[in-house]
Amino acid sequence: MCVPMPGLLTALAVVFGTAVAFAPVPRITWEHREVGLVHFHEPGIFNYSTLLLSEDKDTLYVGAREAVFAVNALHIAEKQHEIYWKVSEDKKLKCADKGKSKQTECLNYIRVLQPLDANTLYVCGTNAFQPTCDHLSLTPFKFLGKNEDGKGRCPFDPAQSYTSIMVDGELYSGTSYNFLGSEPIISRHSSQSPLRTEYAIPWLNEPSFIFADVIRRNLSDAEGQDDKVYFFFMEVSVEYEFVFKLMIPRIARVCKGDQGGLRTLQKKWTSFLKARLICSKPDSNLIFNILRDVFVLRGPWLKEPVFYAVFTPQLNNMGLSAVCAYNLSTVEEVFSHGKYMQSTMVEQSHTKWVRYNGEVPKPRPGACINNEARAANFTSSLNLPDKTLQFVKDHPLMDDSVIPTDGRTQLIKKDVNYTQIVVERVQALDRTIYDVMFLSTDRGALHKAISLENDMHIIEETQLFQDFEPVHTLLLSSKKDKKFVYAGSNSGVVQAPVAFCRKHSTCVACVLARDPYCAWNPHASVCVALHQEHVSGRGLIQDVRGGVSACPDRVKESYGQHFFKHGGTAELKCSQKSNLARVVWKFQNGMVKADSPKYILVGGKNLLIFNLSKEDSGVYQCLSEEMVKNKTVSQVLAKHVLEVQLLS
Amino acid sequence: MCVPMPGLLTALAVVFGTAVAFAPVPRITWEHREVGLVHFHEPGIFNYSTLLLSEDKDTLYVGAREAVFAVNALHIAEKQHEIYWKVSEDKKLKCADKGKSKQTECLNYIRVLQPLDANTLYVCGTNAFQPTCDHLSLTPFKFLGKNEDGKGRCPFDPAQSYTSIMVDGELYSGTSYNFLGSEPIISRHSSQSPLRTEYAIPWLNEPSFIFADVIRRNLSDAEGQDDKVYFFFMEVSVEYEFVFKLMIPRIARVCKGDQGGLRTLQKKWTSFLKARLICSKPDSNLIFNILRDVFVLRGPWLKEPVFYAVFTPQLNNMGLSAVCAYNLSTVEEVFSHGKYMQSTMVEQSHTKWVRYNGEVPKPRPGACINNEARAANFTSSLNLPDKTLQFVKDHPLMDDSVIPTDGRTQLIKKDVNYTQIVVERVQALDRTIYDVMFLSTDRGALHKAISLENDMHIIEETQLFQDFEPVHTLLLSSKKDKKFVYAGSNSGVVQAPVAFCRKHSTCVACVLARDPYCAWNPHASVCVALHQEHVSGRGLIQDVRGGVSACPDRVKESYGQHFFKHGGTAELKCSQKSNLARVVWKFQNGMVKADSPKYILVGGKNLLIFNLSKEDSGVYQCLSEEMVKNKTVSQVLAKHVLEVQLLS
Repeated sequence: MCVPMPGLLTALAVVFGTAVAFAPVPRITWEHREVGLVHFHEPGIFNYSTLLLSEDKDTLYVGAREAVFAVNALHIAEKQHEIYWKVSEDKKLKCADKGKSKQTECLNYIRVLQPLDANTLYVCGTNAFQPTCDHLSLTPFKFLGKNEDGKGRCPFDPAQSYTSIMVDGELYSGTSYNFLGSEPIISRHSSQSPLRTEYAIPWLNEPSFIFADVIRRNLSDAEGQDDKVYFFFMEVSVEYEFVFKLMIPRIARVCKGDQGGLRTLQKKWTSFLKARLICSKPDSNLIFNILRDVFVLRGPWLKEPVFYAVFTPQLNNMGLSAVCAYNLSTVEEVFSHGKYMQSTMVEQSHTKWVRYNGEVPKPRPGACINNEARAANFTSSLNLPDKTLQFVKDHPLMDDSVIPTDGRTQLIKKDVNYTQIVVERVQALDRTIYDVMFLSTDRGALHKAISLENDMHIIEETQLFQDFEPVHTLLLSSKKDKKFVYAGSNSGVVQAPVAFCRKHSTCVACVLARDPYCAWNPHASVCVALHQEHVSGRGLIQDVRGGVSACPDRVKESYGQHFFKHGGTAELKCSQKSNLARVVWKFQNGMVKADSPKYILVGGKNLLIFNLSKEDSGVYQCLSEEMVKNKTVSQVLAKHVLEVQLLS
Repeated sequence: MCVPMPGLLTALAVVFGTAVAFAPVPRITWEHREVGLVHFHEPGIFNYSTLLLSEDKDTLYVGAREAVFAVNALHIAEKQHEIYWKVSEDKKLKCADKGKSKQTECLNYIRVLQPLDANTLYVCGTNAFQPTCDHLSLTPFKFLGKNEDGKGRCPFDPAQSYTSIMVDGELYSGTSYNFLGSEPIISRHSSQSPLRTEYAIPWLNEPSFIFADVIRRNLSDAEGQDDKVYFFFMEVSVEYEFVFKLMIPRIARVCKGDQGGLRTLQKKWTSFLKARLICSKPDSNLIFNILRDVFVLRGPWLKEPVFYAVFTPQLNNMGLSAVCAYNLSTVEEVFSHGKYMQSTMVEQSHTKWVRYNGEVPKPRPGACINNEARAANFTSSLNLPDKTLQFVKDHPLMDDSVIPTDGRTQLIKKDVNYTQIVVERVQALDRTIYDVMFLSTDRGALHKAISLENDMHIIEETQLFQDFEPVHTLLLSSKKDKKFVYAGSNSGVVQAPVAFCRKHSTCVACVLARDPYCAWNPHASVCVALHQEHVSGRGLIQDVRGGVSACPDRVKESYGQHFFKHGGTAELKCSQKSNLARVVWKFQNGMVKADSPKYILVGGKNLLIFNLSKEDSGVYQCLSEEMVKNKTVSQVLAKHVLEVQLLS
């Protein structure tokens, strides 16, 4: 059977009349067994959905179904601690009585795993549709038995969406508040000032919660801003009307200093504002409105945090994914100066949403308390005038949208459903900065991609999970010398290095990988990872744009010598990893026509020569030809000397 | 090089993580050279956009750029007449002065070719942005030089959409009325009663015209209904609000007896109503809103005409097409009893469309004059009360949608963009009725499909045009013994038979084709077309569900005998057309493992055996295994007797 091979995707695209656009092919495909991945999996335990990394302790905490583990973050196969949190038989029966499955739903799915202090984790589980939270002491690794009601912190139903983030000891979460899952809320759990959203369509309309994180105020900021917590979710659109229920991705934010209102919005957010996230390509009629995951890229190199988000389309999705990035300042501009939307009744029975063009009360509804507000004697949200509070209660939705960085998508890829994203900003040898995106798929793979002169280059695809199961969680550890990607699925956790530099055995192969993590060390003749200890940039060769001229020797002249019988068949081998290259064979410097009756190319690589005769003796070379920036880079992959002998 | 082969699509679908759903593969692919197609093309003439068939005369009229031809409909290569209609140099220059291309746009594209009477055709062309119409006498084949102004009958711009239909000597057309293409109208050209649409967004909002046809009144109908002309078009939605401009497919209808209003709607349609056409699969979030073509299926077998329409998605289209069918009665129900939509101003600046729930004036706005209206003394649209006319002027859009037959799509197909459709209702040997759909693609191919127990079966794919150019026009001739499909493209016209029965050389191959046109004649040992002369159903074998048990002999026992040398390589051939089958090889009744070092399958079919020895002598059988209704049907395609001889 002939195996699908490099170049075939393109061929098929032509055969089936599909545009080749949006089909960047990963340059290299690493099969599961080909690369050294470390696994963690406990027999009988499933749904490894929650990962938490302690970089100080080099420990990875893993929340699964009915269990929490601590494993060595540098080698996750090494389990350090484990603790089980099972549902009692009695509770299971009660849950089953309510019509839920005893085998699957009436168990305890860990959904919240957040650091409470240096020695304690905050853990919540669905607990057979009775969400419960506890404190997990790390030394010893034991639950403190708090048995807090987890309502509003953790979903009842393991199938429902959830997100949470611990900020200064208070848990901010987005989840549903009841058994049926019909009461969605975004809330803060705090003994001093618990706050939540209203139950009202304008606030949350059948949402799915995706992600939450805190952005600390800029300490050099003169406006006296507050820390802010951002929520990413989808909900059914109120502003658009479509043939079906249309999902709209949203970003919402609340202020950490929010105390709720005194009369209006008592114990409710006074700072809850939300806006549309746009990720589309209008000239191709592509619209990505199913938000899958968000990653916050931040660091000393960055002027401001950047939100990276991965999307798929809701409509007509035959396997299409996109990545869009959003600058924090763009988001803030919409919330601080954007227009609001208002709802209006039309003909007594239709609610329509339009831009609000009337006067906006002061202080600005939904704004955090800053120096200006304090100067006007609004020192807390409890002081805010009713007019401002009533306005934000009725107008939580902005009319302006959050537009992606550079007004466009970072990446569009056909024939894949991305599920999760993590991003690392990497400096190449020539000091160029690349945002390296790691994208997991619903079939257990990981894509590593960078933007090269506005074109996407997918450096490699790694099959993390042998069984092609969806990746549910992705986590990045980016400490120097300890750079790993952790991926959780239903069956376990996988740890992969951020690059497989050593797999490239020649200088040309190392440079053509166009991987900012990798460079060629010509003295040791090895492709090294730049972030590894003891690696200095001096004398190394790297060109992320793919120029190979700096490579000293383009061929390792290793001949294979073969003797064959007259009339027989020879098979000459050739190994080639790049999906973007094609293999051509030369015989005595002439091209071999591989579809003639004399020759056949097997698997797109190896050459079969039939009916050997004296004239077939000579030197055969296998070359790889790869298009890099519209230039063909050739490299000799193998040389074979064939000698055909008359039968003795 | 290894060629893409049967089964590979499935393999790739798995490799790339895409759903295999919506990917029915044509069972047989006929390459352009493989089948006998007749071509018509005149050197130097392009854009064969308009086809008109005279079944009485067995003549096909072809409207192209600057020329009209009459060809023999039974063999279109045989040209009967030709006449040229070129633009004068002077006119070309004037057109070029207005910024249009002299080489392409400032020519005369024939866009209307309609029968006026038995000896005259009505012809209009774009005529260098000065649309002009003329009468073409058939004997002799000559223009009468009428030089009528073609405004509103034919577009100015060859790139713009158009449709027209001649009804009782009056031309009904949908096109644009001005040079810029900014004034779309649907009109009737009549010396007695010319009528047209209003220039207003509620009537037509940036439409693209696709198709028009007349449905005659049912003569047995007691209501005294009128003949009706239906227009199919798309326009920018007013009722939905979306991130982009959303196109909505529409069906509109006018009454032949419409005379316009006396004061209100003077010389305008009083019977113009339009409704949404729905073609979607909500459970998969598929929405098809780009209407490509419509075909009216009618005939003595049918209770009522059925509109077959082919669609592609506007949003996120990576190559996806669908067919939906609509019963005339469903359409009529919407127009006769459906709710209307109304537009309302919201907050002074937004127009929103909602269902109109108020009182509807009588007679019903937009209705044709029927017996009931006549009885109430409304004998003509000129008598209609102002209230009715004003209402239909403001409310031409229905709130109810036209739902497809059985509430679902007939066919959804991935990796293809269908452009045109024709349908024939065919009775199989067992008297089961099949609607055979012929669908052309944007890459010059034709698919023939039927619905088999709610699954689509694409019987075959025929490459009509070698250069993979889009098919612009499709026409069906369905007279017994003269059944052909005619396809027009930019380069020419192709005539294809509706079936290639004779290509199936065995009973099993003939029956497995599952083609209602074909049956096996066991006496003559030939696969015959049922619609051909002198073919009677008696004794023939056909089973469109694919049961092959009636076939008398499952194997033609024709052995190939081969002698090979010891140590050599043998290639055993096998020919297999079905893309749904796979080839397996047997040696002495054991299965051959084709990926072992000993054997290789070339092109998925032929068997290579290496390093021959005495033990390889024996009988090799090539079998095809095809899944038919979850049962595997095996057939022996070839037998080879191999004898390996020691070198003499």
